[in-house]
Amino acid sequence: MSRAFHVAVEVRLREGIADPQGLTIERALPALGFNGVSGVRVGKSLRFMVEAVGEAEARRQVEAMCDRFLANPVIEDVGISLRPAT
Amino acid sequence: MSRAFHVAVEVRLREGIADPQGLTIERALPALGFNGVSGVRVGKSLRFMVEAVGEAEARRQVEAMCDRFLANPVIEDVGISLRPAT
Repeated sequence: MSRAFHVAVEVRLREGIADPQGLTIERALPALGFNGVSGVRVGKSLRFMVEAVGEAEARRQVEAMCDRFLANPVIEDVGISLRPAT
Repeated sequence: MSRAFHVAVEVRLREGIADPQGLTIERALPALGFNGVSGVRVGKSLRFMVEAVGEAEARRQVEAMCDRFLANPVIEDVGISLRPAT
């Protein structure tokens, strides 16, 4: 019997990879009155449901999706969090 | 004296707002052999450091940044998490 899991994936640029979008935000903030912000990095956030026989299998499937399709492992890394849907 | 905080902001489309990017991902997955994925929603993830006199002040500042600049409150909502930099 398969179960449903809520999945949250954060796709981040690896350290050292240039992030022009983050830099643009960082440079714009002082003009809007926000000081003291540094190191802005912009990534993607994905949320979805996955059906699998168990949590380990769900995680394996999400990791494979990230490697093959959702992220570019050369320049991005990925954080996955997963919880059973009640 | 001001302290530094690590901030993670997730900007999500509100429920009911169309997400063509999420839909495109969802439709592509079965062709790659990933079945059982549903409800894909794509958002932004921002990470940065902020300097503030305390956690409450840091949070207030990040909320103001989200309202004015980082998110569009008409179609997006925001999750903020914040922890002191050691």
